[in-house]
Amino acid sequence: MENGGESGRKEEKNNVKWKFQGNQGLKSSAVSVRGVFNVLMQSINKERDAVHLCRVDPTDNPFFRADPVAAHALSTAVNSGNFNGYPPTAGLPQARRAIAEYLSSDLPNKLSAEDIFVTVGATQAIDIILPVIANPGANILLPRPGYPLYEFRAAFCGLEVRHFDLLPNSAWEVDIDSLEALADDNTVAMVLISPSNPCGNVFTYQHLKRVAETARKLGICVISDEVYGHIAYGSNPFVPMGVFSSIVPVITIGSLSKRWIVPGWRFGWIATCDPNGIFQKTGIAASIKRYVEITTDPPTVIQAAIPEILERTNNEFYSKNLDITRETANIFYEKLKEIPSLTCPHKPEGAMAVMVLINLSQIEGIIDDVDFCVKLAKEESVLILPGVTVGLKNWLRISFAVERSALEEGLSRLKAFCVRHATMSQQISA
Amino acid sequence: MENGGESGRKEEKNNVKWKFQGNQGLKSSAVSVRGVFNVLMQSINKERDAVHLCRVDPTDNPFFRADPVAAHALSTAVNSGNFNGYPPTAGLPQARRAIAEYLSSDLPNKLSAEDIFVTVGATQAIDIILPVIANPGANILLPRPGYPLYEFRAAFCGLEVRHFDLLPNSAWEVDIDSLEALADDNTVAMVLISPSNPCGNVFTYQHLKRVAETARKLGICVISDEVYGHIAYGSNPFVPMGVFSSIVPVITIGSLSKRWIVPGWRFGWIATCDPNGIFQKTGIAASIKRYVEITTDPPTVIQAAIPEILERTNNEFYSKNLDITRETANIFYEKLKEIPSLTCPHKPEGAMAVMVLINLSQIEGIIDDVDFCVKLAKEESVLILPGVTVGLKNWLRISFAVERSALEEGLSRLKAFCVRHATMSQQISA
Ligand SMILES: Cc1ncc(COP(=O)(O)O)c(C=O)c1O
Ligand SMILES: Cc1ncc(COP(=O)(O)O)c(C=O)c1O
Repeated sequence: MENGGESGRKEEKNNVKWKFQGNQGLKSSAVSVRGVFNVLMQSINKERDAVHLCRVDPTDNPFFRADPVAAHALSTAVNSGNFNGYPPTAGLPQARRAIAEYLSSDLPNKLSAEDIFVTVGATQAIDIILPVIANPGANILLPRPGYPLYEFRAAFCGLEVRHFDLLPNSAWEVDIDSLEALADDNTVAMVLISPSNPCGNVFTYQHLKRVAETARKLGICVISDEVYGHIAYGSNPFVPMGVFSSIVPVITIGSLSKRWIVPGWRFGWIATCDPNGIFQKTGIAASIKRYVEITTDPPTVIQAAIPEILERTNNEFYSKNLDITRETANIFYEKLKEIPSLTCPHKPEGAMAVMVLINLSQIEGIIDDVDFCVKLAKEESVLILPGVTVGLKNWLRISFAVERSALEEGLSRLKAFCVRHATMSQQISA
Repeated sequence: MENGGESGRKEEKNNVKWKFQGNQGLKSSAVSVRGVFNVLMQSINKERDAVHLCRVDPTDNPFFRADPVAAHALSTAVNSGNFNGYPPTAGLPQARRAIAEYLSSDLPNKLSAEDIFVTVGATQAIDIILPVIANPGANILLPRPGYPLYEFRAAFCGLEVRHFDLLPNSAWEVDIDSLEALADDNTVAMVLISPSNPCGNVFTYQHLKRVAETARKLGICVISDEVYGHIAYGSNPFVPMGVFSSIVPVITIGSLSKRWIVPGWRFGWIATCDPNGIFQKTGIAASIKRYVEITTDPPTVIQAAIPEILERTNNEFYSKNLDITRETANIFYEKLKEIPSLTCPHKPEGAMAVMVLINLSQIEGIIDDVDFCVKLAKEESVLILPGVTVGLKNWLRISFAVERSALEEGLSRLKAFCVRHATMSQQISA
């Protein structure tokens, strides 16, 4: 009897026509970092330890360690029991003030606490800022190569995307002409990632000024993604885009993730750098305020730790980490020169990743960058992101936020791979 | 000269036609909680201490204190230094497992870690789940009164909203007929908030089963917002909707905010309760996975604390808090009976807020609920949300997640206000 009931029920079950289905827009997104990463992970040769040169998580390098100041600040906030309640929507005043002061020390036009909105990592800053500017028909100019989250979020909020080029043979500077050619009456903003992920360059003062002037000419604002702010270890110093905020209004995005080596704390910010009050007039400031009211916030306990972290982290911590990064960047650049069929057009001097060109004509049996990375994972257990995931087909995006020995091991396997796959003519000339 | 240059520049500045503007959709949202709250805050009589009966932040009541287990778990995770890196996209495996076990103890069909996705509070769970089901043309059924974040997020992802009623005179149960009448071929889901915010009722097993059967008949899934899960202190025990997941697939939303009294930790989850694998077949599971890959995550350090918090918080902590809540609910209900022109149709037995009807015909010089709350703020420095913010015009939504003495003070001022504004006929009959 019971069984009969059960199977009767099963019948009925199959008869229900469920009307919901997963969002089609989510399914059909272009080549995703995660999608490719999963393919790579499945391809990997499990008999050998894998070398990950994919993600930029500085904690992957055991020589990068958060400053004890950070853990102290956070555990003090936790143990006080005073920061368990909901935070104010834009953030704790003391956290906003501390970020304003931190950023202002590099700016001619000082920021106030009201210019700062705290976010759950820079990721949420992107999640917030794109919808804020996404009126129907609007388009945004994004760098190519870039950081794919911008493309996903733009697609998700109906913001049309147009790509301007970063020029590998001009130190990855912005192709200003292509930028101007792309913009039209519906263009509302451009994004610059500075220091540049994934190119590893640091834009000069002069170049940033030109970008600002161009944006002004186009009537668009600049979203400056400075998640790698101050991670500059070559000859160009880091210049925040906010320096040019009297030329063009700037939205600066930042986070604790890279400079303080706590990406897992998921803390970031949006700063409106706008001495002329243009964001007020155009309703951008009001829309940001409105959006942060209807979305989630970084934990109050983490916000409470921010003043101590920003004020007490000492310079030795920063400079030691820059030394480590410079060293790994140098190793990377020197070793890469020895690898046939790969070219790094610009020595990395900022951020923690770099773009490398695959000279496909010199390699046999490999169709494109994805094929390259899948075979590399299979044959050498080395994980590298194909350039297509960041917008540049037939390039590689390599992270060097790893321990020196891992980088060396990864590069020597990469070399073995390239040597093995070199075309006959290459092998002879070698 | 310099001055001339400056003013030349100012001229030029004014000539720029900036093309960006704040998202119009964000500006034109309906009566928002925050918007009304700001009006109330401006209206407040500053000469008197304000009594806040607006927000439901249990830390506002000093008798609600987080269990020391929670602070211990989090500060241990922080000080270990092992949880500073990016978390896996759906969450740390140990956190997902602990949540699956916690929820499964009340469910006939056990959940696995793969059914759990960690979120930045239940707020982010809503931010994620609505876009996941929002295909073009789709609509969702939301309760009235409800929790306005659903409306905002739905509007933002192009999901049409239809409201079914909760019936004040039937213990705030779902009006099943109106639910059926609202649904059409494009209806994909319904939301239930259980225990109910803002009504303060706890749905019975039988009623929830009827809701599940109705949803099944309509071919829609149930999103069960159980942020107040287990906060049931009357005669009806809390029954998770997942109990009926073999009838209809259920998405359960939960968080640490209320039961563990750490809303500021911003930790929540999505659980797919679906023994028949319908979310797999319909692509909902894949879309959730995809969405969590492109959005932000709860901090790794907080995720790392979850197993200890869920496994070690002891029952006395929970039951003591229920006792406090029951006591404040009782005080509320008894005191409210003494207030002319206000009626509470159902004694609160769950969650931490309640709906109260304003009998406008018995009050003079007050147009509606917003007017009531503005004048109450001005005359008595008591902050209460007008019902319109949660979908019911001419009701009040009162939070009692406050200290007993604050509640008593607030209610006695509310009484004074109502007495003062009673119509002549009321005053005579009183
Ligand atoms: C250019 C860029 N923007 C934003 C982010 C997101 O930063 P967060 O980890 O603070 O969310 C990253 C992370 O790698 C990034 O590289
Ligand atoms: C019904 C309901 N859903 C969701 C939330 C958001 O919860 P959290 O604080 O975990 O983000 C709340 C908060 O009050 C709520 O009442």
